[in-house]
Amino acid sequence: MSVMQLRSYALGAWVAPAGARPIRTPVTGEVVAEAGSEGLDFAAMLEHARRVGGPALRKMTFHERARMLKALAQHLHERRGPLYELSLLTGATRADSLIDIDGGIGTLFVYASKGRREMPDAHVFLDGPTEQLSRSGAFMGRHVCTPLQGAAVHINAFNFPVWGMLEKLAPTLLAGVPAIVKPATQGVWLAEAAFRMIVESGILPEGAVQFIAGGVGDLLSHVGPQDVVSFTGSAATARKLRAAPAILDNATRFVAEQDSLNASILGPDAAPGTPEFDMFVREAVKEITVKAGQKCTAIRRILARAAHLDALAEALSARLAEVRVGHPALPETRMGALASAAQKADVLEAVGRIGAEARRIFGDPENFQLLGADPDKGAFLPPMLLRCDDPDGARAPHEIEAFGPVSTLMPYRDAAHAAALANRGGGSLVASVFTDDPDFARDLALASAAWHGRLYFADRGIGKEGTGHGSPLPHMVHGGPGRAGGGEELGGVRGVMHYMQRTAVQGSPRMLTAIGGEWVRGAPEIDAGVHPFARRFGELRIGETIHTPARTITLEDIERFAHFTGDTFYAHMDEEAARANPFFPGRVAHGYLLLSFAAGQFVKPEPGPVLANTGLDNLRFMKPVSPGDSIKVRLTVKRKTPRNESYGEVRWDVELTNQDDETVAAYDLLTMNAF
Amino acid sequence: MSVMQLRSYALGAWVAPAGARPIRTPVTGEVVAEAGSEGLDFAAMLEHARRVGGPALRKMTFHERARMLKALAQHLHERRGPLYELSLLTGATRADSLIDIDGGIGTLFVYASKGRREMPDAHVFLDGPTEQLSRSGAFMGRHVCTPLQGAAVHINAFNFPVWGMLEKLAPTLLAGVPAIVKPATQGVWLAEAAFRMIVESGILPEGAVQFIAGGVGDLLSHVGPQDVVSFTGSAATARKLRAAPAILDNATRFVAEQDSLNASILGPDAAPGTPEFDMFVREAVKEITVKAGQKCTAIRRILARAAHLDALAEALSARLAEVRVGHPALPETRMGALASAAQKADVLEAVGRIGAEARRIFGDPENFQLLGADPDKGAFLPPMLLRCDDPDGARAPHEIEAFGPVSTLMPYRDAAHAAALANRGGGSLVASVFTDDPDFARDLALASAAWHGRLYFADRGIGKEGTGHGSPLPHMVHGGPGRAGGGEELGGVRGVMHYMQRTAVQGSPRMLTAIGGEWVRGAPEIDAGVHPFARRFGELRIGETIHTPARTITLEDIERFAHFTGDTFYAHMDEEAARANPFFPGRVAHGYLLLSFAAGQFVKPEPGPVLANTGLDNLRFMKPVSPGDSIKVRLTVKRKTPRNESYGEVRWDVELTNQDDETVAAYDLLTMNAF
Repeated sequence: MSVMQLRSYALGAWVAPAGARPIRTPVTGEVVAEAGSEGLDFAAMLEHARRVGGPALRKMTFHERARMLKALAQHLHERRGPLYELSLLTGATRADSLIDIDGGIGTLFVYASKGRREMPDAHVFLDGPTEQLSRSGAFMGRHVCTPLQGAAVHINAFNFPVWGMLEKLAPTLLAGVPAIVKPATQGVWLAEAAFRMIVESGILPEGAVQFIAGGVGDLLSHVGPQDVVSFTGSAATARKLRAAPAILDNATRFVAEQDSLNASILGPDAAPGTPEFDMFVREAVKEITVKAGQKCTAIRRILARAAHLDALAEALSARLAEVRVGHPALPETRMGALASAAQKADVLEAVGRIGAEARRIFGDPENFQLLGADPDKGAFLPPMLLRCDDPDGARAPHEIEAFGPVSTLMPYRDAAHAAALANRGGGSLVASVFTDDPDFARDLALASAAWHGRLYFADRGIGKEGTGHGSPLPHMVHGGPGRAGGGEELGGVRGVMHYMQRTAVQGSPRMLTAIGGEWVRGAPEIDAGVHPFARRFGELRIGETIHTPARTITLEDIERFAHFTGDTFYAHMDEEAARANPFFPGRVAHGYLLLSFAAGQFVKPEPGPVLANTGLDNLRFMKPVSPGDSIKVRLTVKRKTPRNESYGEVRWDVELTNQDDETVAAYDLLTMNAF
Repeated sequence: MSVMQLRSYALGAWVAPAGARPIRTPVTGEVVAEAGSEGLDFAAMLEHARRVGGPALRKMTFHERARMLKALAQHLHERRGPLYELSLLTGATRADSLIDIDGGIGTLFVYASKGRREMPDAHVFLDGPTEQLSRSGAFMGRHVCTPLQGAAVHINAFNFPVWGMLEKLAPTLLAGVPAIVKPATQGVWLAEAAFRMIVESGILPEGAVQFIAGGVGDLLSHVGPQDVVSFTGSAATARKLRAAPAILDNATRFVAEQDSLNASILGPDAAPGTPEFDMFVREAVKEITVKAGQKCTAIRRILARAAHLDALAEALSARLAEVRVGHPALPETRMGALASAAQKADVLEAVGRIGAEARRIFGDPENFQLLGADPDKGAFLPPMLLRCDDPDGARAPHEIEAFGPVSTLMPYRDAAHAAALANRGGGSLVASVFTDDPDFARDLALASAAWHGRLYFADRGIGKEGTGHGSPLPHMVHGGPGRAGGGEELGGVRGVMHYMQRTAVQGSPRMLTAIGGEWVRGAPEIDAGVHPFARRFGELRIGETIHTPARTITLEDIERFAHFTGDTFYAHMDEEAARANPFFPGRVAHGYLLLSFAAGQFVKPEPGPVLANTGLDNLRFMKPVSPGDSIKVRLTVKRKTPRNESYGEVRWDVELTNQDDETVAAYDLLTMNAF
């Protein structure tokens, strides 16, 4: 096959490689591509992102950007076939490529969905409720999040060229921030192909994405206070980037996901023969062999009670013996090549260092069966298992990351000891616990959650539904403290926040309403001269309000409601008992009677734009209503959120007041309204 | 008066100064104190915090730590008298001291209150709802926050010795993390006195706090991956700390609040004669003069339309001319001394640099009236106003922070220009806008929120309730991007999170319930053999459940409910019209009928531990209920939160299902239960 000439994409144009260097496939050792980024004007790329891409993205609402992500995901999904071919050249098996390619596209889909479900169709994201900052409520506070006005620089790892690119792009673009993508050299041909599809789709506005096939040159000396550098890779490289003068000078946000000595713990209850023991063996073997162990989240340390260690070593060895290593294109191959010859050498060196404090009990890199490939040309290794019987005294198994199909077994005594050993990693992306004992799970979580970005608990209850120790999910945060880099990505909307600024906004309810796009109690009410339930979704304005007439609640209403519904609670039925209750002055109306009567006051009987009452939030009963009291309702359009092409959700601020204008209940009412 | 010998507090003991250096009061130039921290074992102090203080704090729940903060706040409040005397020596007036001392104690009170209202009486804080990660719900995700297992190092600024210490201590201790406090040299006598009260109160567990009166020595070379360094001070110092090898090596959390060229914008509508103009003049003068302008949040840049600039300069000058500078103990003094002679020299140097691009229009440091103090001995300055008519060409007014009673006026053209100028600060703690125009406010917010940690909007509507441009409030985040340091503090629970690790927890509902302390749908239900409404708060266990019998909903029920409540919406009353609605198969029951009947199914009539239904959250109607359908209810204890000595809030997970076991509605019900 011909050697691929990989191009960068800068300032809206493809740029042929300059100073290109050859890149070899680890499967056969042949040169398959050339890439080089010499001559690129990195400062101009950053400015292009800031001046062109950022403003274009910020013009869109969160929903518009979410729909853009969905279109992009669909575009890639339909065209992903050729990516599998390119993925084979990285050493990945079909199963590995699924994680990379389909996993990456799936992440786009999840962000597209969360963007529409959990974010507003607006330019400002509200963080938390309003805070009343003065006695009367004339002065309030609210936190708003808006897109950073800089560029995101994504420096990705070699192991998942597609997923690694898309899992960073999805939250960045949803936030409204343009990105410059710099993939790792190994596998850059795959990232470039996927990136080319993104550009050719025409779905993203100009300047939203750029691509560097080659080194980053002096890019990082041009980052500023509104930029974000998000790095995935080795701790050593992260350490260098973290100390880049421009990053330090500008307090530039730096997100790192680096080394991680992830532990997996077999619970004391999970003896051989239990479902958890079997699940554990399957999971450990999977984590050692998938992607030839080149996953940031792979299980590097296996902890078990000393009493279970021999049986576990035996079970793991038996399963690992079934793993066939070979050319990734062969259907019988279970584990493919490492990313490069250099990577293989690094792993062997790390195994040697760990081996000084542990002994190898399975797998011989000098002697293993290899299917359909030349061991002298390809970067292949067998799965390897080490055992360290003095995990307290040893250091290397807790500190040296062999980024390949390697894991070390070690014994623990009890929950506290298991947690202490897991924490010896100095901060990890994930730890997992296989146990059927909720107390052990809880003890482990309390003792070690602070050291791990993710904790994965497997018991028989999860059946086959567990997504696995090693799988970061877009819904859950990915990252970890300390050695893992101290960064955080994904986690749904949480991941979007890393590309936004949270700002405390203080002012009158009127100003907070104008800025946040959500009506704040105390802001002006709009009288549209017509019942808001008669207005279509598109007609309704934030702040439109109706005040209903008052309805008097009689003792007969209360008794009738009680007998009709069956709710004959004494506070409604027995004057003396009600008075003895600390909250009530005597017999009072049911809360649900108030809700129901309120609806009776504002609901319009005839068909109209309001299709259904879909729910209710934050209902609080603030003052009891006694027989003879009357209630009236204020109903105000608080927020509007389109849900599909035909209708949207309207959130109404509802307040029930009594004859003395005291608030007796308040809540958010949700309705679905036709466009 | 005798020279105070200030001591450090390390490993549970007071340590006399070694290598002490004299510290002068800026009021008279006399030496008032000596402090020095030579010989302290900083590594041992960190270990003491980690090994003794951390575990003691982590044994407590959030509520217990909140009560501890409240007790501490009360203790300090009762004893604050002597602190005012010590504050005078820092150059602060009585009004300045109120901000520092009462403001700091108030911050403790707010955190005590928020800790009990917004956090659980438990060891784990839940962040966001559960995430369903598998089809059947057998595998779920949840984010939990737990205290970091390291120490917090607080390096505070000189301007607010008490507030600066307490605003960092409150969220840190509430999180469950021990702290080492290192105040600035100027005013350390005041911080030491307040700290001594804290220690002597005996309210905090041993190891929770330590104190360094003097330099930090090699402290920062011992920080690790679970520690947090929180710094307030100059950008230059922050830059040095940020690059400390141990911080970079360990990805140690580093929170900085450094320089900030805060802008205040007079809206185009706020012409002379408007309430906003008058509010603006008052606020600007206050910000220039309070604490002699030595506030991180003070107004350094005043932006107004060119047409208003002369009138504004005149009004500001007239008010500034009334400000009397002098000995802070004199009742007529409005502005006291700067923190030190060095600080005064710094300010004059900065004014000189700004003056190269702006002209001074008010205040002459060589010639001003000084009350009751010697200008050659004390560090006094008059308020100074500069004016720069070319703010686009100038750099110094946007980049040089004169940390004293100094501000620079400059003109802007329109909202975009005003925002661009405000953003020229390169990241600020706060910007304010004085306008009665919500559109201008919104434009400003969208264009500049990303550059500011806080935006303060003042209109006539806030009346006298506005808390001021320069006041960080415990409810709202404090910090800003870029030049302001990129850090964030306060903001209620948000500020606590900086001392906790957020961890993604995945597992079965049973495991998530055990770890999070909140019942997750799908987890085992506990049958206590008695109706849970008959059980007192303390008896109820998480997961206790009752299933009610089914009740059939008849068409007659629906009609009766409609006519009784007045809610005769067509979906309940008109078969044909209901069928035309996209959500309904025909006539359906009212949502509130379902809620009311559900209550009828589970409420016990007679007096018992359940005192009241106080509210309802997250109600969603999922499937319509037709005449002839029956509904039954599952009611499960989800979470318990004590509210006072007599009762607590029980949050119930309620699910209504029909005859086919389909969920028709689900919600959280809140009740108040007797202990």
